Amino acid sequence: MDRRSLIKNAGIAGVLAASAAPAIVGAQPAVRWRVASSFPRSLDTIYGGAEVFAKMVSDATGGRFQISVHPGGELMPPFGVVDGVQAGTVEAAHTCPYYFFGKDDTFAIGTAIPFGLNSRQLTAWYYDGNGLKLFREFYDAYNIVNFPCGNSGAQMGGWFRKEIKSPADLQGLKFRVGGFAGKVLSKLGAVPQLIPGGEIYQALERGTIDAVEWVGPYDDEKLGFQRVAPFYYYPGWWEGGAQIDLYVNKAAYNALTPEYKAIVAAAASHAHVNMQAMYDVRNPQALKRLVAGGTKLEAFPRSVMDAAFRASMELYTELNDTNPRWKKIYEDYAAYRRDANLWFRFTEARFDSYMQAARL
Amino acid sequence: MDRRSLIKNAGIAGVLAASAAPAIVGAQPAVRWRVASSFPRSLDTIYGGAEVFAKMVSDATGGRFQISVHPGGELMPPFGVVDGVQAGTVEAAHTCPYYFFGKDDTFAIGTAIPFGLNSRQLTAWYYDGNGLKLFREFYDAYNIVNFPCGNSGAQMGGWFRKEIKSPADLQGLKFRVGGFAGKVLSKLGAVPQLIPGGEIYQALERGTIDAVEWVGPYDDEKLGFQRVAPFYYYPGWWEGGAQIDLYVNKAAYNALTPEYKAIVAAAASHAHVNMQAMYDVRNPQALKRLVAGGTKLEAFPRSVMDAAFRASMELYTELNDTNPRWKKIYEDYAAYRRDANLWFRFTEARFDSYMQAARL
Repeated sequence: MDRRSLIKNAGIAGVLAASAAPAIVGAQPAVRWRVASSFPRSLDTIYGGAEVFAKMVSDATGGRFQISVHPGGELMPPFGVVDGVQAGTVEAAHTCPYYFFGKDDTFAIGTAIPFGLNSRQLTAWYYDGNGLKLFREFYDAYNIVNFPCGNSGAQMGGWFRKEIKSPADLQGLKFRVGGFAGKVLSKLGAVPQLIPGGEIYQALERGTIDAVEWVGPYDDEKLGFQRVAPFYYYPGWWEGGAQIDLYVNKAAYNALTPEYKAIVAAAASHAHVNMQAMYDVRNPQALKRLVAGGTKLEAFPRSVMDAAFRASMELYTELNDTNPRWKKIYEDYAAYRRDANLWFRFTEARFDSYMQAARL
Repeated sequence: MDRRSLIKNAGIAGVLAASAAPAIVGAQPAVRWRVASSFPRSLDTIYGGAEVFAKMVSDATGGRFQISVHPGGELMPPFGVVDGVQAGTVEAAHTCPYYFFGKDDTFAIGTAIPFGLNSRQLTAWYYDGNGLKLFREFYDAYNIVNFPCGNSGAQMGGWFRKEIKSPADLQGLKFRVGGFAGKVLSKLGAVPQLIPGGEIYQALERGTIDAVEWVGPYDDEKLGFQRVAPFYYYPGWWEGGAQIDLYVNKAAYNALTPEYKAIVAAAASHAHVNMQAMYDVRNPQALKRLVAGGTKLEAFPRSVMDAAFRASMELYTELNDTNPRWKKIYEDYAAYRRDANLWFRFTEARFDSYMQAARL
């Protein structure tokens, strides 16, 4: 059967159905959603993830399901999007769950916690482990149905005006950091600041802060941090693989047809894999440009990593003891983290380390 | 607007459209496809990838676009699926491109070549580099439109009856290996055998072959290799991240509506990310079971890795000189491989190696 005859037959079926009942077989309703992003439009990677999602939904529905994406601040403040989705002011948001650790520390696990899962592991835990199931339960109280919708990979440790040679150098450091990691940095004596992406450069330029972490070479270069801080540290031990979520208002989600629900899930998966791909293709080029421009790449010393690891595990013990919502999700996450690292250190790590040292 | 009023309004729009023309706005045609898999049904990871794809397409279309998946051998031999798609015997196949290096070595790059890209890097090159574009051009001569539709991650180096202590131990070794890598193993003196997944165990048990590589702990355990070979080597340097593709017959693809084309792309992305997640969740558990059962994990010695690396690069130079289709794709791939490994060795590798050594 060729395409024309297929369409013709479906058309006839539709006409028959239409005469019998008002709901036509195969016809899908017109739906319009707004997505409030927490990010500035200039970041084609992370802001672009919501646009990739929206375009796929539109393409898959012949434009009947239209989603407009709005940069942070346009409809509501960048960090106001959970309230917006919860109240149904917007149908959806595209954001980093860990921004909302002030509501409940459990949010942090949804993006990244210090010494947590890397990008592939977090995706695995969401898709084939218990991650999505556990977070769907947790978010229910916020009227949110969530979908993984992007990951940055392991982030850089950020831009510093001065070198970090030991944990003592963190004392009193005013450091812009993406959310929950500030709790660990506080334990180490730093003074964490949570500032939306669009406002960080100014704060660093003005000296309101001493250091800033954002994402990695490609995004950081756009925000211009290399112009005001010479040292670029790695690894971002608080973000081994930071996930961005699509948060959908529960009532808006439940109002969708089963077909549209599936299209939302598939389009989110498409945007999820596409964002990591963008970072993995664009970060290497940006890194080369930054280093050519004089940026100094530095590894955090072992003493800093170890102090941060101890402080992180101490914090997780405290949270296990005080927050049952955290404990329920963290215990499952931590068990997978143990298993995943056991497995990854054999064939994945051996292959990667050989390739990274090879003359290619 | 609630769901019912949306459907009602769409219904009215549909009725109006129906009275004007036979093609109803929003109605999509009934389509039925068959997917020939190269894999046995017992492998829920790799065979399951096609089922995840088919279910998502069905869900997204209210069952109007139905895809049945058929295990290797049911409709055609496991390695006959490219001929099947090219001739239009089936609308699609789910297979590893590198099985078809006998037609053209360029196919191999589509899955994995020795010392190639890892899983994330290969996905990045397809989605945001030139990979998909270049392969769409290459496959055009085979009437194929391809979609990445699964990845295994870095595979294990396989099951060996005897230890491999130096390149000399590869001499005369009859080794089942997944396609193109056999060319490198031949240069090292081994005797490669290409056998479909469903037939390998028997060959190893009967002693027709001395060693076998398949995928990794989860799949290998199901096929039972641990019962007939004690040594389990890593890394699978010929498959740092093996991609499985959905091959769609060009005419079948072109007959789809734009909506269905988008749904196929999104569902393939969903299956792509889901398969890697399954491996990353299930391999650790299987690895623990195998080791508890007596399997001996061994790393290939550096001398074997180095000999294989040299032989691989020699082969790629030969192919660059003799096959312009290979050269066009390989040069782009190799440039990204250089850049990607430059970037990954900083923050990704540093984070992962810290986590793999940590007491979690």
